[in-house]
Amino acid sequence: MTRSQLIEQIQTKKSYLCVGLDTDITKIPKHLLTESDPVFTFNKEIIDATKDLCVAYKINTAFYEALGLKGWEAMEKTVHYIGDEHFKIADAKRGDIGNTSDQYAKAFFETMPFDSITVAPYMGEDSVKPFLQHTGKWAIVLGLTSNKGANDFELQQTGDGLLYEKVLQTVSKWGTPDNLMFVIGATQADEFINIRKLTPDHFYLVPGVGAQGGSLKEISEKAMNKDCGILVNASRAIIYDSEGKDFAEKARKVALQYQQEMSTYL
Amino acid sequence: MTRSQLIEQIQTKKSYLCVGLDTDITKIPKHLLTESDPVFTFNKEIIDATKDLCVAYKINTAFYEALGLKGWEAMEKTVHYIGDEHFKIADAKRGDIGNTSDQYAKAFFETMPFDSITVAPYMGEDSVKPFLQHTGKWAIVLGLTSNKGANDFELQQTGDGLLYEKVLQTVSKWGTPDNLMFVIGATQADEFINIRKLTPDHFYLVPGVGAQGGSLKEISEKAMNKDCGILVNASRAIIYDSEGKDFAEKARKVALQYQQEMSTYL
Repeated sequence: MTRSQLIEQIQTKKSYLCVGLDTDITKIPKHLLTESDPVFTFNKEIIDATKDLCVAYKINTAFYEALGLKGWEAMEKTVHYIGDEHFKIADAKRGDIGNTSDQYAKAFFETMPFDSITVAPYMGEDSVKPFLQHTGKWAIVLGLTSNKGANDFELQQTGDGLLYEKVLQTVSKWGTPDNLMFVIGATQADEFINIRKLTPDHFYLVPGVGAQGGSLKEISEKAMNKDCGILVNASRAIIYDSEGKDFAEKARKVALQYQQEMSTYL
Repeated sequence: MTRSQLIEQIQTKKSYLCVGLDTDITKIPKHLLTESDPVFTFNKEIIDATKDLCVAYKINTAFYEALGLKGWEAMEKTVHYIGDEHFKIADAKRGDIGNTSDQYAKAFFETMPFDSITVAPYMGEDSVKPFLQHTGKWAIVLGLTSNKGANDFELQQTGDGLLYEKVLQTVSKWGTPDNLMFVIGATQADEFINIRKLTPDHFYLVPGVGAQGGSLKEISEKAMNKDCGILVNASRAIIYDSEGKDFAEKARKVALQYQQEMSTYL
């Protein structure tokens, strides 16, 4: 999906919501466990219930890998089921030497039809670039994350500002706002104005709303740009709102609240 | 595998060789492509031919993920085939917020019987700790990598030395030499004496010998400690020595050269 197609989706749906499919088999409604593929069945119902309210789905690969082969199969089925109207994010935090990042890019952009993948920047340019060389595909590089551990390295001083600032400035030279986004945690609202100065045109993937406590209002006010410029992810707050047979209906209700609030900021 | 079991393997075999199974279906001998699982068949023959010469196998997850479901299956079969006498490394470069790293730990330590996984440190303590909470299992955290991109961030100055030095000093407080190793690239030989001062007791996983050009002699002289303290990985140099039917025999020959050289340094 191109940047202009993504922006068009946002304008049409009046939403910049990303629904996170962190599907944990121990947390999904018990009645699904008799299905042949409970994780895929759960995802399918969540997607059907939320697809007009969100512009993106984010698949957290860890939850699928934890189930082994069966989980990888559920991931493949899910990404195909989502289809082409949504921006599909593999939240995989990959990154390795060039010939290996090439293989990860192949896994998520060719073998599976993801539009984008989250990438860890620690290993530098040759670990990130292979994800920027596929037409219509995106690297979403970790900038400043939502977790407490962000203090350990990301928020440490370097010779060129804080480490995450150096990452934003350096990595933004490797791609363009058409193939590169950054992960910026919603819990880092105080830093958003500064971050937007450093990378005025890039989209940010913003996790941390909902279960992690970030404020949608605050990040929308501080981080949006003229093209919207943010995809706000909520996972647990949407998909686990109910453990009953009404889980999809309840997920829709929460997603609708997000979408309605978002429409007021657009 | 515990530290003392690993050291015993090293002493018995007079080897600290790790064979890297970066098995690329486009590079394995053509005659294997008619097999039902060419990647697993290739790995099986490589393992049979090298198991008395090495103490560890490193599976580079990217090459398996690139093949989708079939690749993940080949990985699972391979890690089971290796068995318990070798230290099994998932070279996966994972790392995410705590609840997600938990799932990755489950994937590689419970669903699959790996002994260890490589972990990217960028997201800090809560992203690394879940890998340190499984008895007999190890996190191998990126310190200073072998690639050119190491210059972009790892070798940049922070308030507490270079970033990789800060990573070594900080991360080494989160675990012990019994459950934590570091990845140090063989191409970074000039830094090894300094690195050993910062982390005297830890094992290092050292890739970058062979195809990437690092010197086994130099790193052995500079990085070994009283318990050996290094696992030196070679992947392409061993597994792709021949494209013919003699590939396993030729791989053995290269592995034997490494082992014989290693025995002189032990």
